[in-house]
Amino acid sequence: MTTLAGPAIQDLYPADFAHCLGCGRLNPLGHHLKSHVAGDTVIACFQPEAGQTSLPGFVYGGLIASLIDCHAMATAAAAAEHAAGRAIGEGPMPRFVTASLQVDFLKPTPLGGSLEVVARVRERSERKAIVVVELSAAGEITARGEVVAVRMPESMLRPAQAS
Amino acid sequence: MTTLAGPAIQDLYPADFAHCLGCGRLNPLGHHLKSHVAGDTVIACFQPEAGQTSLPGFVYGGLIASLIDCHAMATAAAAAEHAAGRAIGEGPMPRFVTASLQVDFLKPTPLGGSLEVVARVRERSERKAIVVVELSAAGEITARGEVVAVRMPESMLRPAQAS
Repeated sequence: MTTLAGPAIQDLYPADFAHCLGCGRLNPLGHHLKSHVAGDTVIACFQPEAGQTSLPGFVYGGLIASLIDCHAMATAAAAAEHAAGRAIGEGPMPRFVTASLQVDFLKPTPLGGSLEVVARVRERSERKAIVVVELSAAGEITARGEVVAVRMPESMLRPAQAS
Repeated sequence: MTTLAGPAIQDLYPADFAHCLGCGRLNPLGHHLKSHVAGDTVIACFQPEAGQTSLPGFVYGGLIASLIDCHAMATAAAAAEHAAGRAIGEGPMPRFVTASLQVDFLKPTPLGGSLEVVARVRERSERKAIVVVELSAAGEITARGEVVAVRMPESMLRPAQAS
């Protein structure tokens, strides 16, 4: 099991943007995915619950897509901070949203153990990042993702927040 | 609002394969997506809950990916029955699983109203189908998906079921 130190990237999102069902610390019903920088990768571990199933004995693909998606947004945010010359937690964490999500389900993901999610930034600009993600169960890669993350547009600020 | 008649495709899955978090009628915690054949399309309506959010005021992208995924599997199953010359419900509904899932998030999906999910089979063979899906909120398409569905492999039968 990889040891993950320091605060999770999602725990540094501003409170107004910390309600995501996948990774928001302020969503009481959420999955609470926690992603940590580890060298040039970003890593998360996640323990699915019994009900998060597709076919009996296997993890729900929609959950796998969700984990890959949220983890990629955290990875893009961390990369943006790194590119700006800031350490994680030094400034407010920028918020990215998903432009596109591609997931290849390489083999069924067994339900029961912990999942490991590892991401790298393939390329990035100030506005967007392409993030590649691998999801493993029991040390075996079962899904691969490629996610295009873009900085949250102002149109996603609610009126109360934008004012 | 589209009127959807007859049993949902997911309600015709065999009981051993009806526990999917996205669409299984036997998963008490699930989303219970219901997809219906309507001409040469397959349609579902879904009402997200308040907690199924990404950023405040918008639907969680992982949920959108999940709906597109489950709806595409139902569409592939219905197309397989149609190709076999059977009416929906005439035989046990075949079960498909996702080989790959591509979702383009065209614009933020507002949280509050009902979502409509419409799918068509782009191409199919006995073993697999490529399904294209559009997800709309308030009559506006906010996400597009392309999903490769394959017939459930025997390796996904649990030992108790395979025996």
